Amino acid sequence: MRIEVVNTGSELLLGKVVNTHVGYFGDELFRLGLRIQRQTTIPDGDDIRVVLEEAFPRCDVILITGGLGPTSDDITREIVAEMLGRELQLDQSILDGIQEMFRSRGLNPNRANDRQAMVPEGAVVLDNPNGTAPGLYVPATEESPHLFLMPGPPRELKPMWQSLVQPRIVELLGVSGQQVETAFRNFRIYGVGESAVATFLEPEVEGIPDLELGYCARLGEVDVRLIGSDSAVEQAAKILRAKYPEDIVAESEDSISQVIIQLLSERGQTIATAESCTGGLIASTITDESGSSGVFHRGYVTYANEAKSSLLGIDLATIESHGAVSPETVTAMAEGCLRESGADHAIAVSGIAGPTGGSEEKPVGTVYIGIASVGQATYVKHYFWPAERVSFKTRVCRLTLDLLRRRILGYPLS
Amino acid sequence: MRIEVVNTGSELLLGKVVNTHVGYFGDELFRLGLRIQRQTTIPDGDDIRVVLEEAFPRCDVILITGGLGPTSDDITREIVAEMLGRELQLDQSILDGIQEMFRSRGLNPNRANDRQAMVPEGAVVLDNPNGTAPGLYVPATEESPHLFLMPGPPRELKPMWQSLVQPRIVELLGVSGQQVETAFRNFRIYGVGESAVATFLEPEVEGIPDLELGYCARLGEVDVRLIGSDSAVEQAAKILRAKYPEDIVAESEDSISQVIIQLLSERGQTIATAESCTGGLIASTITDESGSSGVFHRGYVTYANEAKSSLLGIDLATIESHGAVSPETVTAMAEGCLRESGADHAIAVSGIAGPTGGSEEKPVGTVYIGIASVGQATYVKHYFWPAERVSFKTRVCRLTLDLLRRRILGYPLS
Repeated sequence: MRIEVVNTGSELLLGKVVNTHVGYFGDELFRLGLRIQRQTTIPDGDDIRVVLEEAFPRCDVILITGGLGPTSDDITREIVAEMLGRELQLDQSILDGIQEMFRSRGLNPNRANDRQAMVPEGAVVLDNPNGTAPGLYVPATEESPHLFLMPGPPRELKPMWQSLVQPRIVELLGVSGQQVETAFRNFRIYGVGESAVATFLEPEVEGIPDLELGYCARLGEVDVRLIGSDSAVEQAAKILRAKYPEDIVAESEDSISQVIIQLLSERGQTIATAESCTGGLIASTITDESGSSGVFHRGYVTYANEAKSSLLGIDLATIESHGAVSPETVTAMAEGCLRESGADHAIAVSGIAGPTGGSEEKPVGTVYIGIASVGQATYVKHYFWPAERVSFKTRVCRLTLDLLRRRILGYPLS
Repeated sequence: MRIEVVNTGSELLLGKVVNTHVGYFGDELFRLGLRIQRQTTIPDGDDIRVVLEEAFPRCDVILITGGLGPTSDDITREIVAEMLGRELQLDQSILDGIQEMFRSRGLNPNRANDRQAMVPEGAVVLDNPNGTAPGLYVPATEESPHLFLMPGPPRELKPMWQSLVQPRIVELLGVSGQQVETAFRNFRIYGVGESAVATFLEPEVEGIPDLELGYCARLGEVDVRLIGSDSAVEQAAKILRAKYPEDIVAESEDSISQVIIQLLSERGQTIATAESCTGGLIASTITDESGSSGVFHRGYVTYANEAKSSLLGIDLATIESHGAVSPETVTAMAEGCLRESGADHAIAVSGIAGPTGGSEEKPVGTVYIGIASVGQATYVKHYFWPAERVSFKTRVCRLTLDLLRRRILGYPLS
């Protein structure tokens, strides 16, 4: 089944507004065993006609985003009707819905929105509870593939895809006799690089029929996605689990923060943070997730030496003799954080994010990470990863959270 | 001058890897007064031929990314040569460079990389100091537009664009007699919405010839970009400055953190943070910028009431009688943070990020922001912005930093 994506929107071609639709559709279709064969972005306006004329003969399905709004540039609906030789008809229930939405916000509906209630003959209206522009599904004809017209804003498009478009694609796959691959599993792995996972996994799964692999690597985090029949996915999953028993953070897309919150909650434990070079990012990453308040009560951002000393009760002499970026200072930070906070685990980080502040002995990118836990020896890791500040902070944050995860689970640290 | 962008790379269509090239080129070309007329993404492999055949007749310039690597799927170079009827010739200096790069990393060059040293007759090699695949420039012929072939990885592509491609585009513009618009200015505005700026600005600048406007809105931050002749940009800039004297954070793309660090540095002042619902994000945002250590020495993440009390010296009774999310508690947090830290300014935030924890009286999205400064009355702002957690935190962080900026500058707060 050949699927193409056409995105209309001048803002997508002007820079700064990133096209998130492609990634979203790509990921969603991958889970159905499908691929996007081509994706095209065009400005608002008349270009949609040319692109659709080219695409009609070669496609089974075209996913079209944008151009359904109320302004004069929004002409996807009209062009599609014209290309198919269909009349546009006013759909009173859409019009009522638009007018109701305006009134409920204390606004007067204007005539410009009426156009959004026009529907090409034979098209199916896809309700949009999150905006005024409904989507449209135009079933295939002799001359045209299946067309799905969806609104551009992601917060309108995604719910529409989930509830109204994706199920129809599954249905079309069924009718076409193509196998719908329903088994999909994501493995989130920390502590192993993407190429190492791929080099190991690919020969191992070569003999498994109908298995597709996908990878996605972010700073310090690798997602391995398995798709295929239930048994193919389960076979590959077993191989991954056997190889990386301690490195698999989740068999899902749960964030490492969610995993840590879950692990701590189950054990009735808490965590506190003492951050220098990460500047609060670790605390912020933990508190990105609901439920964090149960396991995280306080964090210290001790950027200056004086703050390390007064907030964490560290002897200033330790810092002065070994330096703020040293195993001794980070050990004292972690243990001070544990003591001052009364938490069960404490993490501490001190490093040189750059671009200034490096030296021959401790270049930019040097960092020490400490983990102190009640009744256990404090662990300190040295790490070196020169990069621009925000990447450095992100990489160190992920590494620290992974060390914490391993500590909670009683895995050896290294 | 009609410009299209063709991105090859299966990973761009599989989800998760976002296509950042389009935004990058769009932004860069906008500064030259140019627009991308169409952008196409295709998988690695043979599709590039079809797409180029379609695009050749209608384009003046095609920017092509990806497909220059060493694997069998990387065939952009070969297809282009074939389409133009050119021989591929070995470029010994490229080959030497590749082999040297391998050796310097202690690796053996393999034959697969030799293909990267093949150059179509008549093409200009674009050096790639950041990878093994050089870029190529193929000047226009009767049958083909100007082609720029660039490597896919952004860290290789961007320097190549800056130093070798962008100057040639400017040159081509000059030859074509088209005006190169060099004046470009970005205004970063806080405290006014995108549509309010547009509604004000567009009628005001209608009479200014050769002025183009661009907008980009993020949560709580609006960029207005002016492009045109020097005098057109200066006229529009004057109008913006007169209308929004206190809301313009920067006449550049400097982050609000950079602006605040600069303002504090100039005054020899410091800032400390006491965060509840933002969970360290404000501290982390400040420390994203180099130079932050001079003005930011410590931050408190006081997620639990007990932490607010013990770290900031707040009477627990205040929290218990008014609640953790209240003007009284936030005032006490800001003043406690100022006192404990010895900083010149202190900001404090407490709110309900959700999805749980809301009540009839204080629904999810409620937040209080406090600013205490030496010798000034403490200011507390109530704000309500229900959204998912990370958006909420980001919006509140930007609002808080903007209040701080206004306080430092002595602007009235509201």
